[in-house]
Amino acid sequence: MSITHPFDPLTPAEIAKIAAIVKDVFQGKRLNFRFITLKEPAKAEMVPFLHAEHLGQAPSSRPSRSSRVQVIAEGPSGSNELIELLVNIDSNTIIEKSPLVGRHSYIDSNYMQAVEKACRADPRIDDEIKKLELPPGATVVIEAWAYATDGMNDMNERTTMCWFYMRLLNDPDANYYAYPLDLCAEVSEDLKVTKIYHLPSSETENIREDAQPYDYRKVQPTEMSEYHPSLRPPPRTTTKPYQVIQPEGPSFQVEGNRLSWEKWTMRVGFNYREGLTIHDVRYEGRSLFYRLSLAEMFVPYGDPRSPYPRKAAFDLGNDGAGINANNLRLGCDCLGLIKYFDGWHNTAAGEPLKLPNVICCHEQDDGILWKHTNFRTQNAAVTRSRILVLQTIITVSNYEYIFAFHFGQDASIHYEVRATGILSTAPINIGDKVGYGTVVAPGVLAPYHQHLFSLRIDPAIDGQANSLQIEESKPLPVNDPAVHNPFGVGYTTESNIVTEESGHDLDHAKNRVFKIINENNVNPITGTPVGFKLLPYYSQLLLAQKDSYHSKRSEFGQHAVWVTRYQDDELFPAGRHTMQSLGGEGIASTIEKRQQEGMSGVRNEDIVVWHTFGSTHNPRIEDWPVMPSEKLVVGLKPVNFFTGNPGLDVAVSTQEKNQSVLVGEGSHSTVSKSSCRL
Amino acid sequence: MSITHPFDPLTPAEIAKIAAIVKDVFQGKRLNFRFITLKEPAKAEMVPFLHAEHLGQAPSSRPSRSSRVQVIAEGPSGSNELIELLVNIDSNTIIEKSPLVGRHSYIDSNYMQAVEKACRADPRIDDEIKKLELPPGATVVIEAWAYATDGMNDMNERTTMCWFYMRLLNDPDANYYAYPLDLCAEVSEDLKVTKIYHLPSSETENIREDAQPYDYRKVQPTEMSEYHPSLRPPPRTTTKPYQVIQPEGPSFQVEGNRLSWEKWTMRVGFNYREGLTIHDVRYEGRSLFYRLSLAEMFVPYGDPRSPYPRKAAFDLGNDGAGINANNLRLGCDCLGLIKYFDGWHNTAAGEPLKLPNVICCHEQDDGILWKHTNFRTQNAAVTRSRILVLQTIITVSNYEYIFAFHFGQDASIHYEVRATGILSTAPINIGDKVGYGTVVAPGVLAPYHQHLFSLRIDPAIDGQANSLQIEESKPLPVNDPAVHNPFGVGYTTESNIVTEESGHDLDHAKNRVFKIINENNVNPITGTPVGFKLLPYYSQLLLAQKDSYHSKRSEFGQHAVWVTRYQDDELFPAGRHTMQSLGGEGIASTIEKRQQEGMSGVRNEDIVVWHTFGSTHNPRIEDWPVMPSEKLVVGLKPVNFFTGNPGLDVAVSTQEKNQSVLVGEGSHSTVSKSSCRL
Repeated sequence: MSITHPFDPLTPAEIAKIAAIVKDVFQGKRLNFRFITLKEPAKAEMVPFLHAEHLGQAPSSRPSRSSRVQVIAEGPSGSNELIELLVNIDSNTIIEKSPLVGRHSYIDSNYMQAVEKACRADPRIDDEIKKLELPPGATVVIEAWAYATDGMNDMNERTTMCWFYMRLLNDPDANYYAYPLDLCAEVSEDLKVTKIYHLPSSETENIREDAQPYDYRKVQPTEMSEYHPSLRPPPRTTTKPYQVIQPEGPSFQVEGNRLSWEKWTMRVGFNYREGLTIHDVRYEGRSLFYRLSLAEMFVPYGDPRSPYPRKAAFDLGNDGAGINANNLRLGCDCLGLIKYFDGWHNTAAGEPLKLPNVICCHEQDDGILWKHTNFRTQNAAVTRSRILVLQTIITVSNYEYIFAFHFGQDASIHYEVRATGILSTAPINIGDKVGYGTVVAPGVLAPYHQHLFSLRIDPAIDGQANSLQIEESKPLPVNDPAVHNPFGVGYTTESNIVTEESGHDLDHAKNRVFKIINENNVNPITGTPVGFKLLPYYSQLLLAQKDSYHSKRSEFGQHAVWVTRYQDDELFPAGRHTMQSLGGEGIASTIEKRQQEGMSGVRNEDIVVWHTFGSTHNPRIEDWPVMPSEKLVVGLKPVNFFTGNPGLDVAVSTQEKNQSVLVGEGSHSTVSKSSCRL
Repeated sequence: MSITHPFDPLTPAEIAKIAAIVKDVFQGKRLNFRFITLKEPAKAEMVPFLHAEHLGQAPSSRPSRSSRVQVIAEGPSGSNELIELLVNIDSNTIIEKSPLVGRHSYIDSNYMQAVEKACRADPRIDDEIKKLELPPGATVVIEAWAYATDGMNDMNERTTMCWFYMRLLNDPDANYYAYPLDLCAEVSEDLKVTKIYHLPSSETENIREDAQPYDYRKVQPTEMSEYHPSLRPPPRTTTKPYQVIQPEGPSFQVEGNRLSWEKWTMRVGFNYREGLTIHDVRYEGRSLFYRLSLAEMFVPYGDPRSPYPRKAAFDLGNDGAGINANNLRLGCDCLGLIKYFDGWHNTAAGEPLKLPNVICCHEQDDGILWKHTNFRTQNAAVTRSRILVLQTIITVSNYEYIFAFHFGQDASIHYEVRATGILSTAPINIGDKVGYGTVVAPGVLAPYHQHLFSLRIDPAIDGQANSLQIEESKPLPVNDPAVHNPFGVGYTTESNIVTEESGHDLDHAKNRVFKIINENNVNPITGTPVGFKLLPYYSQLLLAQKDSYHSKRSEFGQHAVWVTRYQDDELFPAGRHTMQSLGGEGIASTIEKRQQEGMSGVRNEDIVVWHTFGSTHNPRIEDWPVMPSEKLVVGLKPVNFFTGNPGLDVAVSTQEKNQSVLVGEGSHSTVSKSSCRL
């Protein structure tokens, strides 16, 4: 058996062991294990460990294995206490045990289903449903959502919002989002329905008391409202099969969680909250990134009417990208030769719970990597670009997110997000229009909303001491005797190195480039510090007003690029506890606090760069009833880090390797082999 | 034999026929045929023709076939006259014959080689080369460039700039850009060397008189400076073969230049200047775009020192994307089942000249099109996205551009540009640095430059009468009694329809969206006009000062999105004649003129939308000695055009169709079949 690497997620045996340690100290209480996850070692311990590891030496010391555990302990009076613990696995000891007062654990699908059951069991809900006079055969579906703080509720209690839908087909896969109902309820932590009300029915209304019977004109043809193939007419048959064959196997090697491919090495991580994480990323043995992760997401809705401001999801902090990760399947989610990684979580009882196939790893052809034709000799050299893809897909109720890191042979990294799934809908009267949503079907409003992602980039560009440099391209002045620009066509770059923790915005008009550099390592040829640049995704930031709860709770949405000084365990730009959070715990507040402490210098320090990007998603009807993937891509590319094109040694393409076939002229299905060889 | 479609490029027989007609009127003169190309029919004739065609009816009339021809007629005195003609092919008549006074034809590789020869034949050049005291075995290579106007030269004469390089290896594919020499010459139209000078050697110097002997410290190791595989150490062997198999053939059908695929139909065009063009683009028979094309490119260099302001290439107007299109090869430039299209040009004598395989057409897998997992049933539905790619690659001296249109099953179009090839270099003294270039090798400066592309979008969204709508997303105000926004989280969209021809800029911070809409067709469900939106590529615009020649000559570089009223033959945003142009003929000047004529209304008119995008390319050393592809992507997506997701009927993925294979655990090259089936 191989020794667990300090970055490896907890093994099932470790999870079981930790649960036993924790149960020991809570004897007599019923425990609900919310999570048992790796507490990553302190970076101060990891850096020398990794240094020795990459030199092939024995480490002088091995960081201890630790875990962060969250439990709900049921007290004798029925009151629940949320407690977080740090457990040292090597020494079988509990290092820390803190009650989380005023905090709430994330919401999971077991609890969501319990909330749905509680609603169904309440006769008052039944009465309200009857008043709706639904069509015969209708089945009511109740969707539980985390409650977004709006200042209207007592924050000491976890509250769940229940949105009502119906399905008309007798099939559990029928698209109930096509039939949003005019009903809403709130459920308390102990599963009691605390409020029942009706949804706004005009542009300036809030919550209503009175029921409105269902308008039968809203019933839609199945063809327009269903997405599941079993409920749809036969699909198009014109798309011919397309297969990827790798006769000699993949170009990557996997040993446990260590992945190597085309001069890259890295370690694959996974946890209940962030899902896929990537550690110790190196190219040709040179250190690039200590850790890459999606750190948070915020999805606020733009409908101003109560109760809709309560729709604003932190999909990582409230739901978890790990526990909502899909079980990926061959021939469906990835193409070609696939290596899957499983994840491990825990049951409420503390038993290890396998999350199968949560990450897929495979290669893709990505077009041409580089080409040049000598116009004198007509000789061309072409290399094709191969990329390594690490992909995970999460389902958060109605929506899906596809997250993928793409590693390139030119030492580039791209992080691709695809948003798909089903729009969250609300009822609207036939014939009405509102300024903050699109009518995607009769009586179905798809409200405007935003998706804001925070990509956390913990760089280690040739070491931990890095700086953030902001460069802009500017025309040289004319008629300035100190500047030589006789024809008015010269331009140059101006750059500044950020000295204090801060947030920055994008400006494509100035070609503003964010570079993570190591000032201690100067490129021997260019004479400039080695670095990597961020290729940001240009997007609108948070639209909610500055003093709104949405804004206070999602501080990372204020700027596109943040730089902070590295701190162990500082992983979440909206704070560790996002459920019904009140704000003031995000990245801006942290920076403010550290500025007061004089600990906010970031030049030539161990820094973290956070990129906020996303989309202002004002739905199109083309996003209905299931949304074609919307792609958002962020890049990281070397800039004067190497001494030349890192993909220069990729072999030119040949017919032997990348075999292509000529389509027969006139006859479209016959194919003939070509003898072309470069 | 099928009848030629009005959008079809000229056939070889037509080219020969036109040449004969033209020769007839120039009897006794020696003609140099610069181009013989299709003059596309007037849109007023084409629209009814296409209407009848798509209804399967006989057209009431067929637009006549016409050609635009450019010749240089050698007069008896040896003086050359540049003449443009319009020829009606059906009636064998010359409709128009205009001398192009003060204009210059594009530069081609035959002429470039003649210029090189003229330089070599001049003993003064020889003398200057001797003064450089080059290393033994050096071969001087002379690269001819079109002369960019800088106000220093008599503009009545076409002038060619000659840049000097050397190669040290006795191989014509050796990378001479690694050895830029301190020498420069100008050559006149009649191939005389008119000026010889030396290049600046300090930051504030211009052209110099004195020669500087070559600094031998600039000689580089082959491994660092060569890109051609035959001159390089053996390549990496870790990249395993990767093949695309389509056992049932492609999903597209081709009949002549008509292409149909997955509900799309279109016609493929090609000409010497724009290269690939696309016509009459429809989805499910509904009209979307009348014509899509790359209309111009401008590549100005940022080095302010004379003679470098003369480096500023209009790669379409000066060089031609068609005549510089690569002969694409199987297994190299595209992967899978490939259909090639040939192009036709003409020789100087007017004979048809085949440009083989200038366009490749193939399909690609593009990841997941849409997915949803019902969290209650755990049933997932996943469809994979197939795209149709139409790709062409051009070589313009040192650089390569890969241009590709991607058509999606969700009715989206993406236009992808990849920049690759070799940086244009200039000499720099060892140890020197300048503010407008990167030292990529000892003594080799890669100057800063910009690539500005103009994508011409001629929409026909459900017909020709379209409008450009600009939409922004804005927070709703708080404390405004007229607006309901009690929690400060509401937002809405505001939009304006552009009424006059104009240029506009991007603003991601406002989520500014450019929609091309048809105000006469309202979507029955959303209640808004049908449309397509532009997904722009965010980039810096032209950096040259407003009153510089660069700026005056490339007016399209002033704004990111332009809208004009459609005019037949108005295809080029920097004017038809870009060689040594003086400015004032671009899109901004045209708009100004039409405003004075009161002809600039664009609301509910036949409009054209032009998107300027590009990159400020401040080279990285990683771009050397051949540049990894830099991707720039522009999109067009339906927005409330359909009544739902146009890719909803794409069949879910299955192992039968998109067969994937599990990588064996522990053993990396063995593969085992999986029985997974959705």
